[in-house]
Amino acid sequence: MYSVTVRDHIMIAHSLKGPVFGPAQRLHGATFIVDLELKRSDLDPDGIVVDIGRAGEALREVLAGLNYQNLDDVPALAGRNTTTEFLARFVFDAVVAAIRRGDLGPGAVGVEQMRVTLQESHVAAAAYEGLVNGPA
Amino acid sequence: MYSVTVRDHIMIAHSLKGPVFGPAQRLHGATFIVDLELKRSDLDPDGIVVDIGRAGEALREVLAGLNYQNLDDVPALAGRNTTTEFLARFVFDAVVAAIRRGDLGPGAVGVEQMRVTLQESHVAAAAYEGLVNGPA
Amino acid sequence: MYSVTVRDHIMIAHSLKGPVFGPAQRLHGATFIVDLELKRSDLDPDGIVVDIGRAGEALREVLAGLNYQNLDDVPALAGRNTTTEFLARFVFDAVVAAIRRGDLGPGAVGVEQMRVTLQESHVAAAAYEGLVNGPA
Amino acid sequence: MYSVTVRDHIMIAHSLKGPVFGPAQRLHGATFIVDLELKRSDLDPDGIVVDIGRAGEALREVLAGLNYQNLDDVPALAGRNTTTEFLARFVFDAVVAAIRRGDLGPGAVGVEQMRVTLQESHVAAAAYEGLVNGPA
Amino acid sequence: MYSVTVRDHIMIAHSLKGPVFGPAQRLHGATFIVDLELKRSDLDPDGIVVDIGRAGEALREVLAGLNYQNLDDVPALAGRNTTTEFLARFVFDAVVAAIRRGDLGPGAVGVEQMRVTLQESHVAAAAYEGLVNGPA
Amino acid sequence: MYSVTVRDHIMIAHSLKGPVFGPAQRLHGATFIVDLELKRSDLDPDGIVVDIGRAGEALREVLAGLNYQNLDDVPALAGRNTTTEFLARFVFDAVVAAIRRGDLGPGAVGVEQMRVTLQESHVAAAAYEGLVNGPA
Repeated sequence: MYSVTVRDHIMIAHSLKGPVFGPAQRLHGATFIVDLELKRSDLDPDGIVVDIGRAGEALREVLAGLNYQNLDDVPALAGRNTTTEFLARFVFDAVVAAIRRGDLGPGAVGVEQMRVTLQESHVAAAAYEGLVNGPA
Repeated sequence: MYSVTVRDHIMIAHSLKGPVFGPAQRLHGATFIVDLELKRSDLDPDGIVVDIGRAGEALREVLAGLNYQNLDDVPALAGRNTTTEFLARFVFDAVVAAIRRGDLGPGAVGVEQMRVTLQESHVAAAAYEGLVNGPA
Repeated sequence: MYSVTVRDHIMIAHSLKGPVFGPAQRLHGATFIVDLELKRSDLDPDGIVVDIGRAGEALREVLAGLNYQNLDDVPALAGRNTTTEFLARFVFDAVVAAIRRGDLGPGAVGVEQMRVTLQESHVAAAAYEGLVNGPA
Repeated sequence: MYSVTVRDHIMIAHSLKGPVFGPAQRLHGATFIVDLELKRSDLDPDGIVVDIGRAGEALREVLAGLNYQNLDDVPALAGRNTTTEFLARFVFDAVVAAIRRGDLGPGAVGVEQMRVTLQESHVAAAAYEGLVNGPA
Repeated sequence: MYSVTVRDHIMIAHSLKGPVFGPAQRLHGATFIVDLELKRSDLDPDGIVVDIGRAGEALREVLAGLNYQNLDDVPALAGRNTTTEFLARFVFDAVVAAIRRGDLGPGAVGVEQMRVTLQESHVAAAAYEGLVNGPA
Repeated sequence: MYSVTVRDHIMIAHSLKGPVFGPAQRLHGATFIVDLELKRSDLDPDGIVVDIGRAGEALREVLAGLNYQNLDDVPALAGRNTTTEFLARFVFDAVVAAIRRGDLGPGAVGVEQMRVTLQESHVAAAAYEGLVNGPA
């Protein structure tokens, strides 16, 4: 299995609901360093997994809807606990949609699996990985 | 598959037995930066893999038995070659036991897989990954 | 000149006032990875710059007043633009006060200079460095 | 599954053929930080995945054929687009051959899977992972 | 002294002249991860060292003249050994010129010192630091 | 001021004397990632601070006397508390001696300042910096 990974980041505010979150129930924030890894069994005719430039642009567009926002006020996330795990899945699903729209180019239909990792600090991270054509 | 990762570290002395270890047969030491990754297919009702605070505490407790020790003198490791690979598995098994005792909270029973990675320098690491409910 | 550095982090929300900040004028947030470097010309009788355990605790206490907060609502920061540069200086001054109170131990009076660095992402950081006994 | 990882690097020039590569069609270059991860289900009698010293030497020998070269002029790569993905596979295959030759010692026959990751910058990487005894 | 740092990177080919360079006399290449640190004694009225967005853009423009190039063919570098040290100074001088042209905004005239660091691998780097208004 | 930095590491056992060290009074160990930064005002005729290959070799030789040792038993360190700060200075002095012996080549006489940094974990480091021709 081949993979390529591109990195970007967002800076957001949010609060988390539930006593399990302790002080993170207060309005606070985070920088999330986001790694998008795209995987496929065989390379395309150019010898690549996907156009890495387009992958980076697609990731940036997905993140633009979250960047410099208070996630508590983002309609697409209403009623959800925007944990790091949840956000990893949210980015995953949005990149799958971008692939299906053709934003990563026609060769990107060959992408089989993806992993989205969000580092929230030097000591904590969360990720979501799955099949691109799975029951998203 | 979702995952969360927490990081901690230990500083230990030890020696390794067998000519394959060359100069590491002498008493020396290491800082191991330890990453504990916990994985599950679905998030719990709070939208998390596991209470990350409790995961960090559980890891710290597991590591406390090793930290600032000469591993050659730790009874639980007697007769074992405390290679980085072996220690990754030792930490894995101890975290599984902590989950079963409920140290990570009742929601942690949903954790299906784990990966424990020990970086011993900027150029070398070892890991153990497996099922939480496998034949530990 | 000798130095020791300890690392911790905070996760905060805030907004910045002024058109130069563009989208960061909106309420958003950041993880700041904070490095505190303490410097002195000669080591103390124990062969150290400062008790690194106490230095870490003092940094944690300073950061506790900011962690998991919306900085726009923190009285001590009222009316200030909590830029990364400003926060580096704020932490610097608070650590100087902690040294003067004796929180880092009596040996810490030998600390001559400090540098506080806040990484806000993998591509941006700010710092403040100065004399400990300067006109703080 | 256990694993060990060793890191090395190469500094090469090359050009990539095809409009998808944009400015990378020009002769340019890269530092690739190379991580070789070797995996097996059980440790050998010494308690290791593989002799980490020999693994590092084998990786260095494989990379020596590429290091400080213009890959456009390397006969073994003639007619190939030396993308990061392609190079990850090239290193993978060369390490498999080294294992089969016995360069990593007799215990290395127990290695079941490998992953080769090439970081080309702080924001981009590629990898190839597969079975060691698969249809290489 | 306050500072802000922004990071970017370039991927170049080049060769170095002189037996001291050993195999680096051949045409090869490098990824340089470039950190630009800008320093001043006091913050501007917005509470910043410099508009970090403009600083990042200015760095990107300076690097654009080098990125994806064979430095042996860049007229501005003709007859020079493009060592990592030399390139750090080249970037430094180009950023000073950008500040003087006003590319970083009028507030950037307050920048007193800068440091440009180029990491060429995980084990090697070079830097140039100096006064902005020195005899450039 | 120009600088070049090379990185290497050691893995050692030791114990520290004095109640300030708490659990580190026990025999334990550390991996120290060592950065040697060499500085000078002007480049030599080859356009470099120093032959980086020779600098790396000199650092490796200095570290070889410590690597895979129990520092409590190293005669050159007898009676000393081998704190991270102390070891940074020890490496500094040994590199100065290597420069004076000509181990880094005749051009290295131009090196004016050095900084030696030892990272002992992802959250702690120590350093020593000074003039090469100072009263070592």
